[in-house]
Amino acid sequence: MERSARVSEILSWYGSDSPGTLTNLARILEHGRLAGTGKLLILPVDQGFEHGPARSFAPNPPAYDPHYHFELAIEAGCNAYAAPLGFLEAGAREFAGRIPLILKLNDHDVLADEDDPDQALTGSVADALRLGCAAVGFTIYPGSAHRNAMYGQIREIAEEAKAAGLAVVIWSYARGAALSKEGETAIDVIGYSAQIAAQLGAHIIKVKLPTDHIEQDAARKVYEKAGNSIGTAAERVRHVVQCAFNGRRIVIFSGGGQVEDAPFLEEIRAIQAGGGFGSIIGRNAFQRSKPDALRLLGQVADIYAGNDR
Amino acid sequence: MERSARVSEILSWYGSDSPGTLTNLARILEHGRLAGTGKLLILPVDQGFEHGPARSFAPNPPAYDPHYHFELAIEAGCNAYAAPLGFLEAGAREFAGRIPLILKLNDHDVLADEDDPDQALTGSVADALRLGCAAVGFTIYPGSAHRNAMYGQIREIAEEAKAAGLAVVIWSYARGAALSKEGETAIDVIGYSAQIAAQLGAHIIKVKLPTDHIEQDAARKVYEKAGNSIGTAAERVRHVVQCAFNGRRIVIFSGGGQVEDAPFLEEIRAIQAGGGFGSIIGRNAFQRSKPDALRLLGQVADIYAGNDR
Amino acid sequence: MERSARVSEILSWYGSDSPGTLTNLARILEHGRLAGTGKLLILPVDQGFEHGPARSFAPNPPAYDPHYHFELAIEAGCNAYAAPLGFLEAGAREFAGRIPLILKLNDHDVLADEDDPDQALTGSVADALRLGCAAVGFTIYPGSAHRNAMYGQIREIAEEAKAAGLAVVIWSYARGAALSKEGETAIDVIGYSAQIAAQLGAHIIKVKLPTDHIEQDAARKVYEKAGNSIGTAAERVRHVVQCAFNGRRIVIFSGGGQVEDAPFLEEIRAIQAGGGFGSIIGRNAFQRSKPDALRLLGQVADIYAGNDR
Amino acid sequence: MERSARVSEILSWYGSDSPGTLTNLARILEHGRLAGTGKLLILPVDQGFEHGPARSFAPNPPAYDPHYHFELAIEAGCNAYAAPLGFLEAGAREFAGRIPLILKLNDHDVLADEDDPDQALTGSVADALRLGCAAVGFTIYPGSAHRNAMYGQIREIAEEAKAAGLAVVIWSYARGAALSKEGETAIDVIGYSAQIAAQLGAHIIKVKLPTDHIEQDAARKVYEKAGNSIGTAAERVRHVVQCAFNGRRIVIFSGGGQVEDAPFLEEIRAIQAGGGFGSIIGRNAFQRSKPDALRLLGQVADIYAGNDR
Amino acid sequence: MERSARVSEILSWYGSDSPGTLTNLARILEHGRLAGTGKLLILPVDQGFEHGPARSFAPNPPAYDPHYHFELAIEAGCNAYAAPLGFLEAGAREFAGRIPLILKLNDHDVLADEDDPDQALTGSVADALRLGCAAVGFTIYPGSAHRNAMYGQIREIAEEAKAAGLAVVIWSYARGAALSKEGETAIDVIGYSAQIAAQLGAHIIKVKLPTDHIEQDAARKVYEKAGNSIGTAAERVRHVVQCAFNGRRIVIFSGGGQVEDAPFLEEIRAIQAGGGFGSIIGRNAFQRSKPDALRLLGQVADIYAGNDR
Repeated sequence: MERSARVSEILSWYGSDSPGTLTNLARILEHGRLAGTGKLLILPVDQGFEHGPARSFAPNPPAYDPHYHFELAIEAGCNAYAAPLGFLEAGAREFAGRIPLILKLNDHDVLADEDDPDQALTGSVADALRLGCAAVGFTIYPGSAHRNAMYGQIREIAEEAKAAGLAVVIWSYARGAALSKEGETAIDVIGYSAQIAAQLGAHIIKVKLPTDHIEQDAARKVYEKAGNSIGTAAERVRHVVQCAFNGRRIVIFSGGGQVEDAPFLEEIRAIQAGGGFGSIIGRNAFQRSKPDALRLLGQVADIYAGNDR
Repeated sequence: MERSARVSEILSWYGSDSPGTLTNLARILEHGRLAGTGKLLILPVDQGFEHGPARSFAPNPPAYDPHYHFELAIEAGCNAYAAPLGFLEAGAREFAGRIPLILKLNDHDVLADEDDPDQALTGSVADALRLGCAAVGFTIYPGSAHRNAMYGQIREIAEEAKAAGLAVVIWSYARGAALSKEGETAIDVIGYSAQIAAQLGAHIIKVKLPTDHIEQDAARKVYEKAGNSIGTAAERVRHVVQCAFNGRRIVIFSGGGQVEDAPFLEEIRAIQAGGGFGSIIGRNAFQRSKPDALRLLGQVADIYAGNDR
Repeated sequence: MERSARVSEILSWYGSDSPGTLTNLARILEHGRLAGTGKLLILPVDQGFEHGPARSFAPNPPAYDPHYHFELAIEAGCNAYAAPLGFLEAGAREFAGRIPLILKLNDHDVLADEDDPDQALTGSVADALRLGCAAVGFTIYPGSAHRNAMYGQIREIAEEAKAAGLAVVIWSYARGAALSKEGETAIDVIGYSAQIAAQLGAHIIKVKLPTDHIEQDAARKVYEKAGNSIGTAAERVRHVVQCAFNGRRIVIFSGGGQVEDAPFLEEIRAIQAGGGFGSIIGRNAFQRSKPDALRLLGQVADIYAGNDR
Repeated sequence: MERSARVSEILSWYGSDSPGTLTNLARILEHGRLAGTGKLLILPVDQGFEHGPARSFAPNPPAYDPHYHFELAIEAGCNAYAAPLGFLEAGAREFAGRIPLILKLNDHDVLADEDDPDQALTGSVADALRLGCAAVGFTIYPGSAHRNAMYGQIREIAEEAKAAGLAVVIWSYARGAALSKEGETAIDVIGYSAQIAAQLGAHIIKVKLPTDHIEQDAARKVYEKAGNSIGTAAERVRHVVQCAFNGRRIVIFSGGGQVEDAPFLEEIRAIQAGGGFGSIIGRNAFQRSKPDALRLLGQVADIYAGNDR
Repeated sequence: MERSARVSEILSWYGSDSPGTLTNLARILEHGRLAGTGKLLILPVDQGFEHGPARSFAPNPPAYDPHYHFELAIEAGCNAYAAPLGFLEAGAREFAGRIPLILKLNDHDVLADEDDPDQALTGSVADALRLGCAAVGFTIYPGSAHRNAMYGQIREIAEEAKAAGLAVVIWSYARGAALSKEGETAIDVIGYSAQIAAQLGAHIIKVKLPTDHIEQDAARKVYEKAGNSIGTAAERVRHVVQCAFNGRRIVIFSGGGQVEDAPFLEEIRAIQAGGGFGSIIGRNAFQRSKPDALRLLGQVADIYAGNDR
């Protein structure tokens, strides 16, 4: 297989990682419809744990079945499929080698919601190897009172994962009593969250699409003084990518809750325009009928492939 | 022994597990009166620890004796007998090989009741091997402030148990300050609890029989919109099974507190009608005289075997 | 040495234990004046740590000397002598092989008393082997907010001790903010404490002599309904033995604070009448002059040997 | 399942083993056509490694297929199937739980035959757990210059296997430059080989059927003086059982090379008459057509079940 | 990517392996020109170590450069590239993810040739993970006096590799003082070598193409009696595949020394006709100019793909 110049460039940013980790990054970057473009479209399905099964899967009942998501990710031509231990265990043999897998190593439920959320460890690097995964995933909550413990956990896990040649994906979602609800997606907070994940050694960073809200006064002054343009979604995406080592780390954006097609695709175009590396789309994928999901994900892939109509 | 088509189908769901774990699952599925049906009837006796000995055993004093429960489980043709370390240690040599054993690895007493309950580790995977067990059992309390630590413990234990070829049973009982008393058996909460246990990698999941109460507002909207039928017990059982990977994980239901025969058997019929995988019946078994218990468990087995009269 | 039928019967209850552990149990059961009777008289001296030296030893100053207790236990014909690390280290060479030793592995002081007491680890299984002990001892406080951690500790220690062929003695003393002072010796609580220790895998269980107080409402209903006779001390002892696996575990009773001879011996007679396995007597032994102690312990042994006059 | 008195008696001999190991012995003793009789019929297929595939399987080509042997053992109602790692790996998932498995942990090929043969380690206790085995098997060559190293290996493996609750089977085959060819099956050597395996801690011992040759002069004098009757095959079997702790260890006899039915069944009758515990029959089973093998093994089972015609 | 029916069938043979190992087998089976056919074409370059650099690379000097072999394997559309540590370390970053890698974990030089050759451990499973390999490779010499130690090494390495989700390739080359030179490629010896590798747990077995010589007298009798047809190369390939678990393990054949195209391609056609799984071709690939090698390997691939002209 020819290696595209863009994938070579991206891999060149990870000079402290082993060829094993590069191999797994390459497996992700060179799989599916966006193979070789340097763009990523990932299907994540941890919502059964994170939000509960009915809230997640009732809108499209076939999605209660773990095989459904393997099939959806494969048919949509995604680069990878990410899920907690149970969902991967339930299909890893049947779909072995058909799509790169990302094992989410921690999870959080909403049966007891807290001001300062934490996550439970629900998988291990050994599980990821046993299941044939290309990467491990881990959520951190910058802003939570538990964040330092979480950073410490991912540090230890990332060290182990890298020694085993796996890639590390960090879901960096600011939350906690110290932040306003609006602040969770504020441009300064999202940029900061991306930076923290990058400093923690993530190869791929997942954040929410930022708004133009600025949460921290100290940040506001700087933005104003520096004249950062953060007025459009594309500008904000560009700034987040800048915050992740000036583009030397892969930053992808979550698809958020279920929405109408038009505004959703506008977001994708903004990510593309701002130099984002792609999307990780869960609910907007598996909460639709499969034909509808394949249609929408096809449009997303077209945008990232530069074939937008 | 011929392998029934149903047992083969059930085992096929566990493709990420070793032949050793499948062997132990098969030992449970092919033992006792329901052998080969794919249905399970398990005798659990952890109430001496969980509720105290007098509350548990005074209604039927022979039950103070640990040998009684081995005998009851064997005579009733149960698939397995589950208990804490001490009860299994007190009979494992005498009854070696006569019924599959499940060692409960954590327990909780009510000498100091808490809003957010936790469990103590009271056994190990090495104990389970030493005692000849087919599986380990573990309780989690989704909804408790301690749940993340519990999830982390079972993750570690399950990894060790699976490496040793054992099966993993999770008792998933939502409890905690964040939940109303009614919420502990709400349909949304029970479904969520089953999902969490499945995502944590359980092979067999034990939950309580759900009511039609809905605890979480976010879930209520979904149930209403999706038109999920949860009006009858059978419909609710079907939904819980759906929540456990659309039927790809074994879900069994606890027998609850001591009740009259008629309503109890109605519950069993509802579990059977809803596609549940069976029951784990403690107090309604050992708190009766043995002849009465054998009669009742015989009726339960008849229902699950499709011989209901 | 002929093995008495009673000792053979007792050893037969421990079928999950190794011959090494049986050997150490047999060493205890077949030592001293009660050798072969299946009854136990143990001298425990952890009060120097638990209550302070002056409170413990000033009433009989020779007791400040650790050698004193070895001598007292040997001269009184006790089955074993139990103490913390320091006391055993101070005499283990001089008295090597002269009496079975039990190393208490955790201890608690009263310099800072708490509502929910905990214990410190003060010895190890390796210490017990190094000092030639037959058993390790461990205190749990059912009812304390720290109980789950304590259960987890003894689980780990018991696994290690059993692997090394040692016996495990659990001091099960209900205490904590959740219990009334009276509740600590309530019949339901003592029975529950004995059950918990048995479920944790103890070979020998030490509890306090229960009163007829009932602490838990749920238990009261059961006692009333079941018609358990708990009116006399002997009846209560019988119930506690029942709560410890229907007599399949050795349950001994602590001697309590210093009292007059007559009521003290009445308690011994009640333990004997109720089928208890003996006593562990500290303050009523070492807080008297040695001749007086030997006289009293002789009377206790006579009662347990069936030579009561 | 009722436990037969004979199986209970056999299990009672293994008092230093854990309930886990007894459970696995019971699984073997209570499986197949001879379940509960205390007699064993085991199918071993290590000849592909030991003698080469063509010599082993060409006489009955379906036997090249590893599934064939699982099926043969199951259809013949054997108590267990024993094979090296590769053969078990090739069918353990498909046949999980259908027959007790014994993983042979060492093997020897004849591509370079030696005066003093040795074996290679080819599996581990962890493999046995992963594959769901009830026991591990190990060959020793008493008489070989390598025997002490082999004894040391099995000691270490047996310790690990017993801690994991597995049973230990030792193939004790005297060979080596120090022995004459006749001496390999001499009555004194076979008796000695059985004793060594028993002293090494085997639960089940496999030897060849002895002849009336006596290899060692020192032994000859003793046999003559003691007046041991070793004139008939049954008498020799009885003596070998005597050499294995006077009947307190299970001793089974190998079926040897392919022979005619009549002399073969005479050997079985001699084993039965001499109090042997059964046979482990490889080549006389899998080197015939399956119908022929099932017929012959059926006759063997009839003899051991006491239904000989 | 669609999974071909043939690859699904092949993966189904490895039921005792984890999804991780299946994933790596699938990576090899679904890469290159033969992707999905179930046939393999692998480039091995360990001759620099095994025969010395000049003997290996002087015929085509660009082959001194480790990058040359990565490029050759990629351009030829091989399924995988196999080499010792140094060669893989010298290109693993530059070619990360472009072709599945197999790290050879032991090697042998000819600076001191022996009658009974042995190999040195030159890499580890951790190296394989660090370099992004899909499999580890290991050479055994059945027939050598060192074979038992080699079998023991690969046993240990294979256990570790499988736990890490890697595939295991065994080069099974009979050599040693006990074998004649002709015997190294005798049909009985090659079949035996394949069986030993399979019993040791190999996923992919590499042997030499056998001749019709029969080395062992015991085998000759069997072949004659059984009437095995081994007269043609295709018949012999078929027999070797039969010896490797009746086709349930992947067996590939080495390309041998540099030869003319015509006889070489005849061998490939024989492998294809006999149901072999493909070739591992070193010297006949890298000792030619690259265009010539690509032409020849293209012809080989055409034969295996069924496009032979």
